[in-house]
Amino acid sequence: MPISTEHEPTKKHLRELAEDLETGKLAELKHLLHALTPGEIADLLEALKPADRQVVWSLLPSEIAGEVLVELGEEARASLIRKIEETRSEELAEAAGTLDPDDLADILEDLPEKIREQVIRSLSQNDRSRLERVMSFSEDTAGNLMHTDTITVRPDVTLDVVLRYLRRRGELPDLTDSLYVVDINDRLIGILPLSVLLTNPPDKTVRELMITDIEAIPADLSASEVAMLFEHHDWVSAPVVDQKGRLLGRITVDDVVDVIRDEADHTLMSTAGLSEEEDMMAPAAESAKRRAVWLGVNLVTAFLAAWVIGLFEETIQKEVALAVLMPIVASMGGIAGTQTLTLVIRGLALRQIGATNLFVLLNKEVAVAFLNGVLWAIVVGLIAAVWFQAIHIGILIATAMIINLLCAALAGVTIPLLLDRVGIDPALAGGVLLTTVTDVVGFMAFLGLATWWLT
Amino acid sequence: MPISTEHEPTKKHLRELAEDLETGKLAELKHLLHALTPGEIADLLEALKPADRQVVWSLLPSEIAGEVLVELGEEARASLIRKIEETRSEELAEAAGTLDPDDLADILEDLPEKIREQVIRSLSQNDRSRLERVMSFSEDTAGNLMHTDTITVRPDVTLDVVLRYLRRRGELPDLTDSLYVVDINDRLIGILPLSVLLTNPPDKTVRELMITDIEAIPADLSASEVAMLFEHHDWVSAPVVDQKGRLLGRITVDDVVDVIRDEADHTLMSTAGLSEEEDMMAPAAESAKRRAVWLGVNLVTAFLAAWVIGLFEETIQKEVALAVLMPIVASMGGIAGTQTLTLVIRGLALRQIGATNLFVLLNKEVAVAFLNGVLWAIVVGLIAAVWFQAIHIGILIATAMIINLLCAALAGVTIPLLLDRVGIDPALAGGVLLTTVTDVVGFMAFLGLATWWLT
Repeated sequence: MPISTEHEPTKKHLRELAEDLETGKLAELKHLLHALTPGEIADLLEALKPADRQVVWSLLPSEIAGEVLVELGEEARASLIRKIEETRSEELAEAAGTLDPDDLADILEDLPEKIREQVIRSLSQNDRSRLERVMSFSEDTAGNLMHTDTITVRPDVTLDVVLRYLRRRGELPDLTDSLYVVDINDRLIGILPLSVLLTNPPDKTVRELMITDIEAIPADLSASEVAMLFEHHDWVSAPVVDQKGRLLGRITVDDVVDVIRDEADHTLMSTAGLSEEEDMMAPAAESAKRRAVWLGVNLVTAFLAAWVIGLFEETIQKEVALAVLMPIVASMGGIAGTQTLTLVIRGLALRQIGATNLFVLLNKEVAVAFLNGVLWAIVVGLIAAVWFQAIHIGILIATAMIINLLCAALAGVTIPLLLDRVGIDPALAGGVLLTTVTDVVGFMAFLGLATWWLT
Repeated sequence: MPISTEHEPTKKHLRELAEDLETGKLAELKHLLHALTPGEIADLLEALKPADRQVVWSLLPSEIAGEVLVELGEEARASLIRKIEETRSEELAEAAGTLDPDDLADILEDLPEKIREQVIRSLSQNDRSRLERVMSFSEDTAGNLMHTDTITVRPDVTLDVVLRYLRRRGELPDLTDSLYVVDINDRLIGILPLSVLLTNPPDKTVRELMITDIEAIPADLSASEVAMLFEHHDWVSAPVVDQKGRLLGRITVDDVVDVIRDEADHTLMSTAGLSEEEDMMAPAAESAKRRAVWLGVNLVTAFLAAWVIGLFEETIQKEVALAVLMPIVASMGGIAGTQTLTLVIRGLALRQIGATNLFVLLNKEVAVAFLNGVLWAIVVGLIAAVWFQAIHIGILIATAMIINLLCAALAGVTIPLLLDRVGIDPALAGGVLLTTVTDVVGFMAFLGLATWWLT
């Protein structure tokens, strides 16, 4: 039976790849690479150290070498291209030359000037104008995401004519689930799903059967809105039109899946101050440079907290127990605030938070903070009072904790909303700002209350 | 022109919905709901407070009320069902009755016992066995994800026969891009993409044109592996088979998109100790209860850190500057460690980390930590020395920072790998454990070194 149900996970491929590389079994390596899709190979390359990537790439079948470049993460791609350029710039031009204009657009900027010109020169007039059209839309818009490989039909022909046309034409573009019906001005007037074409009498006309109640995607819609539309409508592909309703191309679900994966990656990596394009195996010096900025930003927060503590040096001198316990107040505020923050960041991504429900949410989060604040304040207060044999320490830390958790909830809701309003990514900056609030309020409340109590 | 390029985002719908609810314009509300997909309505419901959800749900067109339940997050669904059951249990049974068995399986557990039985009794024999089959696979496997609405053809018929069969049959199931070719034992022997059917002469047989070099998905493959296969192969749908290669059903890309979104949500929410099913608008008491556990776990970490500080009470008493500066050492370690941790968590999710590249990665992360450790240690050391007019404070904090950043890198790589090995979700537990390490090491290194220096 030729049907394979063996799914070898990336991890196993990775092991084989590493073995073949180490033992120099290049023939076997080539064999392995032949069995994989460009996406799988890209995943594998990203897991290799830069020197190995170059070796593997040069062994790729030439018809997919370009596609593999397209599938790689931006950073890994840029560094691989730099490496290949030094020794095999001819192969690079060749690989880029195999790409269709829509894919080429994705990597064009990463190509060295010389090769870029060479590749563009070798395009047909038609391909060159397709490339220019895609490049004219800014990144992360529908226009940049679309492919131009649509099949269009006229409304007045019969299904039989369409069927004969398709047979003469041969192969359909990947993920074609609908033909697009356009008028003489190229304006989209309907779509004809293949399923309609296949299940209706051949003598009917396209006009009789085409679906006109559809949403076409404007070319300037953001990629993230496009992804939401696909998710809500379960589309396989959707037409992209310009402001006059003229058909420009189509977006397919495979590219939408990449958008969704990238957005999720972006949110996760941003919370740690990393880029979703971060190359896991980049040289240490490069990684260190990129991450240094994030550490510097967080250092400002840390010094701010230290400065607050410094205000109360005398109090701490009198009662060292305060120094021992103060990180508990700050850290519990940070943890509780991060829960609220994360919930709001997700709600913003799903467009589920607006003026109408903001106060319901804020009330709820403050109520949650109050309930948990009281619960854990009692626990922490009791432990602290017993530990240091001092009831006043217990009362102080309990009160400070409740104050800090309430502020954490307020900050957790308002910070991401404010950042979103001014156009800063809440996933990136939200955490730092929240920690600043919970550290400052935590130390200030605990040490301030103690100072007031002890004098 | 009937083609709409107006894309009203959820936020706008939310505003309209809230206005209609407030002013009691139920007719307009119904009109709005009619224009939306079940996925969009579910997103809107999740943004409403529980009482409003019930009102809106009862206004839904009866043919989509069931689908909306399927699309809701688990927690929001369970609470809505509880509410509806009290007043409108008949409608609930009706809504569930409109679902096909594959969708019904997703919400069956949330239905109250009585309604569950009623719905199952009302199913046809055929539907009941379909339901049982889907329910027999555990959650998050291909078998649970699949639908059973496949179209199968025999290998020996001509395309013409297939075309006539499809016309007689009428409508195809949503997202049908291939027909499945099975032998008399129902074993999958190939697939016939619609594009092949449409672009070849009608007198050819299915056997001549079917694609046999395909990967079928075993029913017990995990949902996350299924998603990777779809991403790497750009599939619209794929057949699911049992161990003997018999066709069981098919998985479509719209469900895979949900898997990808859920997994990403799971990772993000887990880092804050939340569930991806968390209901943003749940009653405060419920949310507080669920989140209390996470705060409790983190409290243990906080007390551990406090205990470490407590070991050095005398030293702090002598030199209060230590208390002022110690959070800087701990927090910078936490930030740097979280960067490594996040990178490794993503690498694990993409199956890009294995025995072969573990040490390359570890070396790189330690090198990054060293470079940034030295850089920021110098900055912090200088500031501290100037602030407290004491060179030894500067030297102490600089040394402690380098130590802590190195430990943070080690912990950032090893903790998620160990957790993954023992089957604990690194996104959930990684952060707490990492912070424990960076807090303990940070305070221990700084205060320990200071104690040794000062005595």
